[in-house]
Amino acid sequence: MERTLILDCNVKVGEEVKICGWVYTRRDHGKILFLDVTDRSGLIQVVATGGKIPELHPQDVVSITGKVNKRQENLVNKNIPTGEIEVYAENIEVLSKAAELPFDMGGKELDLQLPTLLDFRSLTLRHPKVKEIFKVQAAILEGFRKISKELDCVEIVVPEIAASATEGGAEVFHVDYYGHSAFMTQSPQLYKQMLVPVFERVFTIAHAYRAEPSVTTRHLSVSTQLDCEFGFVEFEEVLDLMEQVGIETIKFAENQSKDILKDFGIKPVAFGKVPRLTLRETQEIIFKEFGRDARLEKDLAPQDEVDICQWSLKTHGSDFVTITHFPTAKRAFYSKPDTKDPEYSLSFDFLFRGVEIVSGAQRINDYQQLVDVIKARGMDPENFEMYLQAFKYGMPPEGGFSFGLERMTMHMLGLANVREASLFPRDMERVDIRLSAKGNPSTTLGTGVKREK
Amino acid sequence: MERTLILDCNVKVGEEVKICGWVYTRRDHGKILFLDVTDRSGLIQVVATGGKIPELHPQDVVSITGKVNKRQENLVNKNIPTGEIEVYAENIEVLSKAAELPFDMGGKELDLQLPTLLDFRSLTLRHPKVKEIFKVQAAILEGFRKISKELDCVEIVVPEIAASATEGGAEVFHVDYYGHSAFMTQSPQLYKQMLVPVFERVFTIAHAYRAEPSVTTRHLSVSTQLDCEFGFVEFEEVLDLMEQVGIETIKFAENQSKDILKDFGIKPVAFGKVPRLTLRETQEIIFKEFGRDARLEKDLAPQDEVDICQWSLKTHGSDFVTITHFPTAKRAFYSKPDTKDPEYSLSFDFLFRGVEIVSGAQRINDYQQLVDVIKARGMDPENFEMYLQAFKYGMPPEGGFSFGLERMTMHMLGLANVREASLFPRDMERVDIRLSAKGNPSTTLGTGVKREK
Repeated sequence: MERTLILDCNVKVGEEVKICGWVYTRRDHGKILFLDVTDRSGLIQVVATGGKIPELHPQDVVSITGKVNKRQENLVNKNIPTGEIEVYAENIEVLSKAAELPFDMGGKELDLQLPTLLDFRSLTLRHPKVKEIFKVQAAILEGFRKISKELDCVEIVVPEIAASATEGGAEVFHVDYYGHSAFMTQSPQLYKQMLVPVFERVFTIAHAYRAEPSVTTRHLSVSTQLDCEFGFVEFEEVLDLMEQVGIETIKFAENQSKDILKDFGIKPVAFGKVPRLTLRETQEIIFKEFGRDARLEKDLAPQDEVDICQWSLKTHGSDFVTITHFPTAKRAFYSKPDTKDPEYSLSFDFLFRGVEIVSGAQRINDYQQLVDVIKARGMDPENFEMYLQAFKYGMPPEGGFSFGLERMTMHMLGLANVREASLFPRDMERVDIRLSAKGNPSTTLGTGVKREK
Repeated sequence: MERTLILDCNVKVGEEVKICGWVYTRRDHGKILFLDVTDRSGLIQVVATGGKIPELHPQDVVSITGKVNKRQENLVNKNIPTGEIEVYAENIEVLSKAAELPFDMGGKELDLQLPTLLDFRSLTLRHPKVKEIFKVQAAILEGFRKISKELDCVEIVVPEIAASATEGGAEVFHVDYYGHSAFMTQSPQLYKQMLVPVFERVFTIAHAYRAEPSVTTRHLSVSTQLDCEFGFVEFEEVLDLMEQVGIETIKFAENQSKDILKDFGIKPVAFGKVPRLTLRETQEIIFKEFGRDARLEKDLAPQDEVDICQWSLKTHGSDFVTITHFPTAKRAFYSKPDTKDPEYSLSFDFLFRGVEIVSGAQRINDYQQLVDVIKARGMDPENFEMYLQAFKYGMPPEGGFSFGLERMTMHMLGLANVREASLFPRDMERVDIRLSAKGNPSTTLGTGVKREK
């Protein structure tokens, strides 16, 4: 018999079907056994009686033939799409036995500590509430590509092993590349810029590898970046494009995920007109409105990001804020200094619900200026040979930005830790399993490790 | 004045416009200067006279204001979409000067040796014929995602740093991960399998890192894989799904790229019914039709792939062939042996125009069988802890496949070398620049390096 997806049983009342899926829960009522069975389309109640029922446990993979029946009026479950029906099992075949679960997976919430959630990642991802996170993530990816294409961006595949560190600095992962020293790219930045003279407008989805010795709720050692870069644009246009991409992406994901967001108890995103502030203006507002004086700081602290987003929501009805003009010295070398005041750069962050989800800038597009700034930062232009080549042979004014996929996912769903928004998060304590289990050098986090309260 | 895209000049005849782009070629006819200028939308002829023309060279980035004129009937160029018009320049501003080019970029073909093509990759990618390769590639990516979504696959983002080598073997890149030894994944294989119990059907686009000491026209050290994996399928269904994904992807890309394929002189893809042969049947055909006896070989040699594709085109009108049942010992550990003859596995390759573009298989989905096969191959199940967890807690019958993006691109366009189908190819001799230029250990390819004639 051909398989019927669980959701399709709704149109097969009175018919014989075969459903395939996982035992989600079982309730044994003496001679009657109730199973909740899930497949990719949904969940259904299966009723089994009689002696030929195999012993069943949660996560067993089963193939069940039986008849689809209407439930009695008083037994209808309005919370699920198949709540008016059930399958009366005639035959249950176990396709794959599951070992006994280390914790209960049958509740509405999966109430586990983060280490356990990750130690059993292959299992915990199956919980409906965990699974849903990654459906939202898939919608963000789709929304981002959709708006990028509408803006004429060509998709590019960039390498993630490079001969030199993307942005300088020591926090890079080293790779042994046929006996040569190479690096995992800290971002797709340099490559997307190199493609501006080819396609003018490009987008890419790529990993960013950052060997930062820090353990916080907001950082991953490997994140997924959604990047765009545009030629023939000036600063204000880059800001327009960035806000458009961000808002359209989140609107798309929100529309695709209405039920999930409801399930997570998340309020609709506030899409009021996004305020644009310089860093200094932001700090003034925080001083006035929240009484904290950070007016001499060179960047926003996490609490500043929370506060200014709260202000934005209250005064502009926007869950977003664009912050511009960070100190040139604090940004990556390729950010363009503002000619009106080169202490500050034509850079920006985009905040969403209290956290930065985007960085971007108008870039330096002059070859010699770029060589000079690389030298001034103590780096060797020779290590940027292929990158500089793109500027040597004619680079228009250009700019772009980079969204962090996991942070977007995290804040769309109000998750407490960015690790929950990565299928298999990488941090300094874990590569799937805990590194401490491997008994290697850096298992006890030594000095220099930044830990969050 | 607002910028007009070059292609949009067609609807602005008689109007003043500002166009921005790159000088592609210049022809100096005494007092009249003809420029071909390109932007992301196309190419247009610009006519400039008088004394105020700045000195211009190919790849200079310019902003030109002027009037759009109809060309005289006898000067119309029917080969380009803007062939009936030209811009009569009133002002030309140079936005970015290009250094003198190391070779001519103005011809219809970019006739360079591969090393030069790659040494100047940031420049050579700008040539129309090179650029077009990556427009086809972007269409392949889009087509693959479209059909995968239609088949109910959820997009997943998989990690590319893992604690153990994906498929065993020594040909892996090592990463220093906070003082621990980690590896670049040889494929997204293990992770996509782990997601089958979560979403049943998944797809992902990911890098595959293979530190193979070989230099051939068909291999990259880092390739891009288009992967699908399906739960609750048996072997024949996996074959059906694989052929459907492959054919729909290539059809989509072909439809999106008609002009480009014409430009490359490529015949339409032959979509006759795809023959399915076992390895042994394939070898029989090759013996009978081509007189080469490879009937005892455990895999197809490159010439076998060419021959059987020629046979398929001739006898089935198909540019594709599906080859099944490779020897179990020659395939990855997770391939399922055929219960009827466990010497052979429920594995397959999909050939396109003379080369393998897909590998796949029905997988072992039994936990204990998987543990046993890992041990039998001399590997340690402990290194596969998170992977095995997915099987321990209930894994349905499942299978999937992996397309090589660069090979698909290569053979859609009839390119001679797979490196031409990668924006920034990685091989054992190059990471953007030649490794030999860095004066490090493995620059002179030592013993053990497989080189193709």
